[in-house]
Amino acid sequence: MNIMDIDTVDIDLDQNAVVIIDQTKLPNDIVLKKLRSPKEIWDAIYKLEVRGAPAIGVCAAFGIYVIAKDLAKDFFEDEEGFFKAFYEQKEYLDSSRPTAVNLSWALNRMASVLESHRGEARAVQVEALKDESIAIRDEDIFVCKRIGEYGVTLLKDGDGVLTHCNAGKLATVRYGTATSPIYVAKEKGLHIRVYCDETRPLLQGARLTAFELFESGVDTTLLCDNMSSALMKEGKVNAIFVGCDRVAANGDTANKIGTSVVAAVAKQYHIPMYIAAPTSTIDMNCKSGDDIVIEQRDGAEVTDMWYEKPMAPKGVKVFNPAFDVTDYELIAGIVTEYGIAKAPYSESLKEIFRKKNNS
Amino acid sequence: MNIMDIDTVDIDLDQNAVVIIDQTKLPNDIVLKKLRSPKEIWDAIYKLEVRGAPAIGVCAAFGIYVIAKDLAKDFFEDEEGFFKAFYEQKEYLDSSRPTAVNLSWALNRMASVLESHRGEARAVQVEALKDESIAIRDEDIFVCKRIGEYGVTLLKDGDGVLTHCNAGKLATVRYGTATSPIYVAKEKGLHIRVYCDETRPLLQGARLTAFELFESGVDTTLLCDNMSSALMKEGKVNAIFVGCDRVAANGDTANKIGTSVVAAVAKQYHIPMYIAAPTSTIDMNCKSGDDIVIEQRDGAEVTDMWYEKPMAPKGVKVFNPAFDVTDYELIAGIVTEYGIAKAPYSESLKEIFRKKNNS
Repeated sequence: MNIMDIDTVDIDLDQNAVVIIDQTKLPNDIVLKKLRSPKEIWDAIYKLEVRGAPAIGVCAAFGIYVIAKDLAKDFFEDEEGFFKAFYEQKEYLDSSRPTAVNLSWALNRMASVLESHRGEARAVQVEALKDESIAIRDEDIFVCKRIGEYGVTLLKDGDGVLTHCNAGKLATVRYGTATSPIYVAKEKGLHIRVYCDETRPLLQGARLTAFELFESGVDTTLLCDNMSSALMKEGKVNAIFVGCDRVAANGDTANKIGTSVVAAVAKQYHIPMYIAAPTSTIDMNCKSGDDIVIEQRDGAEVTDMWYEKPMAPKGVKVFNPAFDVTDYELIAGIVTEYGIAKAPYSESLKEIFRKKNNS
Repeated sequence: MNIMDIDTVDIDLDQNAVVIIDQTKLPNDIVLKKLRSPKEIWDAIYKLEVRGAPAIGVCAAFGIYVIAKDLAKDFFEDEEGFFKAFYEQKEYLDSSRPTAVNLSWALNRMASVLESHRGEARAVQVEALKDESIAIRDEDIFVCKRIGEYGVTLLKDGDGVLTHCNAGKLATVRYGTATSPIYVAKEKGLHIRVYCDETRPLLQGARLTAFELFESGVDTTLLCDNMSSALMKEGKVNAIFVGCDRVAANGDTANKIGTSVVAAVAKQYHIPMYIAAPTSTIDMNCKSGDDIVIEQRDGAEVTDMWYEKPMAPKGVKVFNPAFDVTDYELIAGIVTEYGIAKAPYSESLKEIFRKKNNS
């Protein structure tokens, strides 16, 4: 059995544990970790052993279920005590990564389900939590798979695809977002060559994307972020697929730093760039990229991280934004679980949400 | 005295030694190294303690002079023996980096001077070699300074400049090529903010360019290669200055990998990109960038170098070209020691050489 046939986040119902692939150990060691106690679950999210918004959401949902099942034994006849303890643990898990939207979202969904079963037996409440956590997981798989099925229509046998950062199955449960068209293509027997930007400074492309694709048997090549132009000039790339952190109503897309560099280079060589975007990342209340605040991170990530010795003079200033915004004009299509939006995005994204609301 | 007031390569006439800043120790340790024996000089070039085509040329010129001065004692009355020993050592130094054009060029120039003094006294021959080596050094300083004087006309007080890799004074004797307009601006009292791409995988931008600018008191900020778009979008960059390895007759320019990425991004934000090019790097026999062969290097530079552990899955393919070619259409000007060439380059570069030949 291949490591990549294992879900990034799973639940072991018999042992009442969350099971994750510890991503801090990749690509050198493959470690499956079982999380049972609240502290273990909190640590796994805090220490980025599990990462990627969808995967964090699923981990938190499974996590609060695992915790609730244990709590139910202590509060067998005490609903008030059970609810109090549940909310304490929910708040605790929610504090593991305060800015991760999916974390709060998944935990709130779990709390809603519990609320809807007030007055019922602990066993019923716990069963409802189990079902909801599995539903959250299954929805993630469904969304990713559908993105892959729409995305694969943009590819043909033999194509080369460039991707940036990790919007892969390691960021979700299965398939990933940007990688989903590649995995679906593989299931259909198409040969797709994939080029992974290493993605400085945190190297998610090298450590995670190249790892998961290579282990899955995909034809995978790693390159530095500054090599995309040389690669495209050689005619090796037919399409770009990247994920996103947030899509504005006009199609402007915030994603990992460097995405808009790839977009500018792709334009130069007339190569289409596609954004893989679950509708949960499309923010119709955000008018354009100008409304998206870009987080600046510690310069030591650039100068010191991973290295034995610092690689820059001590005291030099460092520019280290975590994300950049790609202008909608550079985007050939936004692939969602309800179809592919094309320009003008201010119209097509509304249509995507009409489809979603009618489904 | 500031380390950056010291020439990258110098001659100590009293001690008969070449003096270099050991660049393999930067940015953590500043080590001035005296090279006396042929082996020491060979090693310094081979081990990249001195690097950059102009600096290597000057080091070789000083080096063969230092060696010849010592040899002259042994062959005081034996011209044939002296010439034989000289050519042996010349060939030895030339083998330290076989592909470095300036290395052979400088050594051949030194041999020509020696030949022109056949039949004269050893002391006269050695003096002629000394004068020629100093002339080679002085010409490098002159060329770099002139590039700076032309280049600075493209800048105004308060401007931000982005540069890539190291085309700095550490690659020459003083001033550098791409950095020369910045150092000349500083001499004129202009405040220029400089942004250095770290330049993966060998990190010359972080280790060398950021170091030399920061130590010289220039307002210096380091960034990863994939952050240039975010930086330009913020309006921080008014011009790009980069060096080059080879300019074709149509203006297409081969330079360190990533240069053409910067060019594509700069186009997106309508920021002018200038190439600093000594006429020695302009190859009028090379019609276009298509005629320039790009060296592919070992993938371990991307996956393993600098790191404690590999940063990519073992066995994954790596794309690691050393250079890329920037299309002449993306270049706003080519700054040489005989003026600034502008489009159409097929005409303006010829004019540069007319000026050079008439000077």
